[in-house]
Amino acid sequence: MKLTILGCHSATPRVNAHPTSQFLEIKNHNFLIDCGEGTQVQLRKYHVKFSKIKHIFISHLHGDHFFGLVGLISTFRLLNRETELHVYGPKGIKEVITLQLKLSNSWTNYPLIFHELTSKKSELIFEDTKVEVHTIPLDHRVYTNGFLFKEKLGERKLNMGPIQEYPEIDVCDYQNLKNGRDYVLENGNVIKNSELTLDPPAPKSYSYCSDTSYFPEIVDVIMNSTCLYHESTFLNDKEDLALKTKHSTALQAAKIAKQANVKQLIIGHYSGRYKNTEDFKTEAKTTFNNTLLADTGKTFDI
Amino acid sequence: MKLTILGCHSATPRVNAHPTSQFLEIKNHNFLIDCGEGTQVQLRKYHVKFSKIKHIFISHLHGDHFFGLVGLISTFRLLNRETELHVYGPKGIKEVITLQLKLSNSWTNYPLIFHELTSKKSELIFEDTKVEVHTIPLDHRVYTNGFLFKEKLGERKLNMGPIQEYPEIDVCDYQNLKNGRDYVLENGNVIKNSELTLDPPAPKSYSYCSDTSYFPEIVDVIMNSTCLYHESTFLNDKEDLALKTKHSTALQAAKIAKQANVKQLIIGHYSGRYKNTEDFKTEAKTTFNNTLLADTGKTFDI
Repeated sequence: MKLTILGCHSATPRVNAHPTSQFLEIKNHNFLIDCGEGTQVQLRKYHVKFSKIKHIFISHLHGDHFFGLVGLISTFRLLNRETELHVYGPKGIKEVITLQLKLSNSWTNYPLIFHELTSKKSELIFEDTKVEVHTIPLDHRVYTNGFLFKEKLGERKLNMGPIQEYPEIDVCDYQNLKNGRDYVLENGNVIKNSELTLDPPAPKSYSYCSDTSYFPEIVDVIMNSTCLYHESTFLNDKEDLALKTKHSTALQAAKIAKQANVKQLIIGHYSGRYKNTEDFKTEAKTTFNNTLLADTGKTFDI
Repeated sequence: MKLTILGCHSATPRVNAHPTSQFLEIKNHNFLIDCGEGTQVQLRKYHVKFSKIKHIFISHLHGDHFFGLVGLISTFRLLNRETELHVYGPKGIKEVITLQLKLSNSWTNYPLIFHELTSKKSELIFEDTKVEVHTIPLDHRVYTNGFLFKEKLGERKLNMGPIQEYPEIDVCDYQNLKNGRDYVLENGNVIKNSELTLDPPAPKSYSYCSDTSYFPEIVDVIMNSTCLYHESTFLNDKEDLALKTKHSTALQAAKIAKQANVKQLIIGHYSGRYKNTEDFKTEAKTTFNNTLLADTGKTFDI
C-alpha cells in the first residue's frame, strides 16, 4: 500500500500550502481521497496518471476538501476519458457537480456515478475480491466521513517443501490448497491444509480521518489499523479553538491513535497560523511515538 | 490603467499553465476578470490584496474561466471580509455559488451581490463618476460576454498662463472652469472656457474578449479601444478547429484589432498543443503590428 500526499493544509490554498488530497495505491486500485482546489495540478506535478483514478472519496463538502473535484471531472472529459468514474461523498455532491456541468454545457462523455452518503453509522461502500472501503463517521461542522481502506485476507501461501514430499500433488491442486482445502491422498489419507500451506500475509488497512473534533467513537471502526491519518489542525494551546471549530489538536490525534492501537500515525491539515510543522510531531509523540508528518508530495509505504 | 495577467492558458490547469484570470486597475477600481481554478493562489503570488477586489466579472461558465470563483468567495469569508462583493456573470452563477455555500454551511459574512446577465446586446452594467463597464456579447459554445472598461472623460485642465492674466479669477472659480463654464468678467466681457482651460486627457478603454469565435459583430462595441485583449486559442493552421470549438486564431484576433482600430492588441488563451507562444505573435503581427503576448504574471500599462 502506498500513500502520496497531494496536499495537507487546511482552509485556503496558498502558494506553498495545498488543501487536502491524497492518492492511495492499494491492491491495484488507485483511490483519490478528497480533492481541494488545485488537486489536478498536484496530480500532474507528482506524475499520477489521470486514467488510473476510478474512485474518488470525498469526506465532506467544505471547499478545502472538495472545490477541486468539478475541475478534475471536467479535465477527465477534455482528456476523452471513457472509463467510468465513481464518486463517493455526502448527499448534495451529485446536485452541485451536475449543475456545474449543465451550466457549462459540458456533460461527461464517460459514465459518472455518484454514491451519496447519508448514514451516521459506519457502512461498507466499496468491495471487490481484494479490498473493502468502509465509512468512518466523524464529528465536524457539516456531515463528514473518514474512510477505512482494508485489504482482504489473501490466499494461503504454498509451503513447497512439504508439498514436494507428496509427488501425487499436482500443480492443478495448488488453487484448492491456496483456498484452504485439505488434500486427500489416493490411499484415502487426509493431509491437513495447515501442513501444506502457510498463513497469508496479514491484511493491511489505512484509516483516513479528516475533518473531525476529538471523537473517540471512531476507535472501534479504526481499531488496529496499519496506518491512521488523523487531522491535527491545531496544537494543544488552541484546544478551545479546536473544540469550537470541530477540529483536533496533535495531542488529540495521538490519543486516538493510541486508543485504536494503530501501528503508525500520520498527522496533517495544519492551520496556516503555525510556521513549524515539527511542533505537531513533537506534541503528538508525547503520547504516540510512531507519528509522522504529512508533507506535500511525500509518499508513505504502508 | 494597469492590467496584470494571472493566467492566460485555455482548458485544463497545468503546473505552469494557469487558466484565465486578469486583474485590472482603473481609476482607483480593482476589477477581477474571470476566475479559473487556482486564481486565488495567483492573486497571492502576485501580491494583490484580496480586500481591494470589490467587483468580479465572469465571461462565461466554462471551468477555465470560473471554477476558482467559489474558492475565492469562500476565502474572502475566512479572511473576515466585511465589504460587499459584486459578481457579474451569466444567469445561473448565483444558483451554483449559493448551492455550494449552502452545502458547506459557509454563508458569507459580507454582502455578496450577483448581477446575472442574459442580454445578447451590449449593455451598461457598471457606472460611477469615473468608469463605465459594458458587456461585449461574444459567440461561444455557451452564453458569453466580454467586457469593455471605459474611463469617463475627465474634467478640463486649468491653463494657468492665461488664467493668471485675469487677477479677478479666484481659486474658487477653478471648479467652474474645470466643468467647462465660460468666465464673465466684472465688466461683463465673456472669456470663453477654451481660452482658460485645456482638453482633458483622452479617456482610455480596455476591451476583454474571451472566449469567442471570429465575430466581427463586436467591432462596433470595441471600436478605438486603447487596448484589446482577444483570445487566440489556435494558430491559423487550426482554423477549422477554431470554427468547430468557437474559438479564434491569432490571425482572426488581429483582424478584429485592425477592424476596430484599437491601439494595442494582447493575445492569450493559448491551447496546450502549442509549445512556443511566440508563433502566435508572429502570426498576429502579419495583420496587426502592435500585438503583445499575454504571459502569466506580466503587467501591461495601458
